Amino acid sequence: MKSKKIGWIGTGIMGGSMCMHLLKAGYEVYVHNRTKEKTDLLTAQGAIWCESPTRVAENCSTVFAMVGYPADVRSVILGPDGVLAGMAPGGILVDMTTSEPSLAFEIFTRAGQQKIAALDAPVSGGDIGAREGKLAIMAGGERDIFEACLPIFEIFGGNIAYMGHAGAGQHTKMSNQIMIASTMAGVVESLLYAAKSGLDMDEVIDIIGKGAASAFSLNVLGRKIAKQDFNPGFFIKHFVKDMGIALDEARRMNLMLPGLSLVHQFYLSAMALGYENLGTQALYKVLVGLNRMDS
Amino acid sequence: MKSKKIGWIGTGIMGGSMCMHLLKAGYEVYVHNRTKEKTDLLTAQGAIWCESPTRVAENCSTVFAMVGYPADVRSVILGPDGVLAGMAPGGILVDMTTSEPSLAFEIFTRAGQQKIAALDAPVSGGDIGAREGKLAIMAGGERDIFEACLPIFEIFGGNIAYMGHAGAGQHTKMSNQIMIASTMAGVVESLLYAAKSGLDMDEVIDIIGKGAASAFSLNVLGRKIAKQDFNPGFFIKHFVKDMGIALDEARRMNLMLPGLSLVHQFYLSAMALGYENLGTQALYKVLVGLNRMDS
Repeated sequence: MKSKKIGWIGTGIMGGSMCMHLLKAGYEVYVHNRTKEKTDLLTAQGAIWCESPTRVAENCSTVFAMVGYPADVRSVILGPDGVLAGMAPGGILVDMTTSEPSLAFEIFTRAGQQKIAALDAPVSGGDIGAREGKLAIMAGGERDIFEACLPIFEIFGGNIAYMGHAGAGQHTKMSNQIMIASTMAGVVESLLYAAKSGLDMDEVIDIIGKGAASAFSLNVLGRKIAKQDFNPGFFIKHFVKDMGIALDEARRMNLMLPGLSLVHQFYLSAMALGYENLGTQALYKVLVGLNRMDS
Repeated sequence: MKSKKIGWIGTGIMGGSMCMHLLKAGYEVYVHNRTKEKTDLLTAQGAIWCESPTRVAENCSTVFAMVGYPADVRSVILGPDGVLAGMAPGGILVDMTTSEPSLAFEIFTRAGQQKIAALDAPVSGGDIGAREGKLAIMAGGERDIFEACLPIFEIFGGNIAYMGHAGAGQHTKMSNQIMIASTMAGVVESLLYAAKSGLDMDEVIDIIGKGAASAFSLNVLGRKIAKQDFNPGFFIKHFVKDMGIALDEARRMNLMLPGLSLVHQFYLSAMALGYENLGTQALYKVLVGLNRMDS
């Protein structure tokens, strides 16, 4: 990057940690967030507050976004106060929100019309990965732009990959979430069966968690289920958003994904039951309820 | 164990390897198999052929079985030529076949009436685990009998656990298979989505296979799918048997397992399509067909 100035939009749990890493690495960071108070820790460390994404982009030739939902991405990038309204030609725009592949392509196209380069670069690794600077980053867009951004990605990323054209980063993240969705059904049903048949869940994970059934979801989230710990590592409400995007994209491609579709239904029940702010392992509580078991 | 004599019934891919380990460890092994030729390698190493499971049990106070289906277990243990027809009181009978928990309990009870102890001790780890002597063994029955058998289990097992009363070994194996079933749906749908959206499957596994989506099924079987390698590590026909047992047991307990039920349906389609002797990763081919994609 030519400049040490970077713009950052979205300073929630993920974005806030990532932005803090940039400040500590010596970058001059211009920040905006819908709720201003969530930038306080960053401005205390030297970040410069801007009233809108447009103002951020007027100050920086490289701007990152990490917001919540696709509608937020659309607003902060394409909206009347958005990044593209303020960025000069030659700029780089990187959206790290998990969002729609088709929106990533739309942003890439609209940015290109202003001679602005765009990457979609969603992450995996959650709040802990963000805090520790060890996120997985999966990027789509032009390869030379990816390479130009790599020194920044390396500040908060551990496992960083260029996946292809615009949208490829989002598609990769969807592949990740599709894998996790059915795997969570496997974890929950396996432990439900174990409990119902009188086994100790931890003893079951001890023996099955090392072989062909081994999975992060079993060995980390399954252990939480065994402890009745339903606190969020990853919120159900965010996972439901991601599965909805994957199902929309699959529908657009006429792609039948029966496992994802089923698991999405049970997570919708989790939402209906008021579990939106619990961790994804609280899918267990949905199936416990349907089976009238003690949780 | 008091004696170095051991009986072994069932010398297929799994049982043959396990029995060979016993011979190499210096045990005097009495073998029977439905197809006599499959004991040739073992008798060449000193194993003694017996015409029936009854004859095996007349010679040995400890007998292991490793056969195919629950009906085979019933036949070689409870049938007119079975183990219980020949075994003296004080003997130990260990069934290592993946079979029905309710049948394990029936065997335990019938054996007990003859003052014979019984363990159900199914394994995980496949042909490679059996060859390398690193199987996971999950045992149910009386703990002191498990402990008496431990020196033998250690000859072909790496990860060995006592899980509880009779049937608990089989229940644990069912938990393992239930976990794998939905996880396989996750792997297949994730890679199908990746392929359909233009991504390289191996590049996707490179990045998602290390984080929250990581799983043996993805990192081992997903890699095979990426190479179009559908050769069996674990046969679809055997997995369908196991899922059928798990569904029967769940039905008996009034336990709803929607993911397992769905995945079982798609594996039934795999059977109908003639994939029974392919590996479980050939679930991919079923979904490729339904989505009219190139394999």
